[in-house]
Amino acid sequence: MKSYHKELWLQIPARMDFINITSDVERALQESGIQEGLCLVNAMHITASVFINDDEPGLHQDYKRWLEELAPHEPLTRYQHNRTGEDNGDAHHKRQIMGREVVVAVTKGRLHFGTWEQIF
Amino acid sequence: MKSYHKELWLQIPARMDFINITSDVERALQESGIQEGLCLVNAMHITASVFINDDEPGLHQDYKRWLEELAPHEPLTRYQHNRTGEDNGDAHHKRQIMGREVVVAVTKGRLHFGTWEQIF
Amino acid sequence: MKSYHKELWLQIPARMDFINITSDVERALQESGIQEGLCLVNAMHITASVFINDDEPGLHQDYKRWLEELAPHEPLTRYQHNRTGEDNGDAHHKRQIMGREVVVAVTKGRLHFGTWEQIF
Repeated sequence: MKSYHKELWLQIPARMDFINITSDVERALQESGIQEGLCLVNAMHITASVFINDDEPGLHQDYKRWLEELAPHEPLTRYQHNRTGEDNGDAHHKRQIMGREVVVAVTKGRLHFGTWEQIF
Repeated sequence: MKSYHKELWLQIPARMDFINITSDVERALQESGIQEGLCLVNAMHITASVFINDDEPGLHQDYKRWLEELAPHEPLTRYQHNRTGEDNGDAHHKRQIMGREVVVAVTKGRLHFGTWEQIF
Repeated sequence: MKSYHKELWLQIPARMDFINITSDVERALQESGIQEGLCLVNAMHITASVFINDDEPGLHQDYKRWLEELAPHEPLTRYQHNRTGEDNGDAHHKRQIMGREVVVAVTKGRLHFGTWEQIF
């Protein structure tokens, strides 16, 4: 069985933002030479997510507002986790909504995607 | 490594509904002849989910009400995404709760499931 | 392709609790002798979750409170599912937030984890 892994490093200035990494994943897939199989894309930090959805700026604004409603950043005292000196209790919750990882089918060397699927 | 893929097409008249596709997935697995490995089942549209839970009608009613609470369909103006002319902003959110995909272990040619696990 | 599976049985006295199973999964991986590939860890009961996050007690308290807000256990009549005689309607919802499964990359015989990733 052929196997390939690659780590991507991203700098995200904002507290919460969505970065389209689809072309990075496609490049890694080409480098691998793998034609058929499964492609796992996962965050390696526990306050980050990898998810698949639409690359539409209005939707991303909606997600930000909604995630803030479901798990507000403030007040920081809302989260016992923040007593450790961190201020990212909310991000640990938001990541559970959006998910840690995606698994994508690889068919004929391509990500087997529906029309609008993009990886963030 | 053996690999097999199949696309299922579903017509769902209601705005939100749950379709049990477990037997479709089992049939595809039998067609594949695969005995050991991983079975990925994913939605290819970004307003749809694939998830595993109980095939119990009361639970499905509960999910519908709950998802509507977490990400209401109306007012349509709630979602910037709907400014694109779509009216499915809510569905993009509901799908993040329910998940895009499941990965199921295949053991001796069968989906390695607990007693009540069914794929929707 | 090499394949290995193992079922873990856990007794959890509380209605909701988080058990770190990372070392159990690492042990199973060592038993398998697999060096490169994917490791699927999934719950086999539909009111249980497998997720990856921080092993920090304050965070786990936060998750418990938050999940109880998103899908309260009581009143039991909140869930049509409980009309079947069960009282676990809430747990079927909580599990959708936290997820059924994780898929972890295996590199050089180890779970390919970020610093703080632990499996619960």
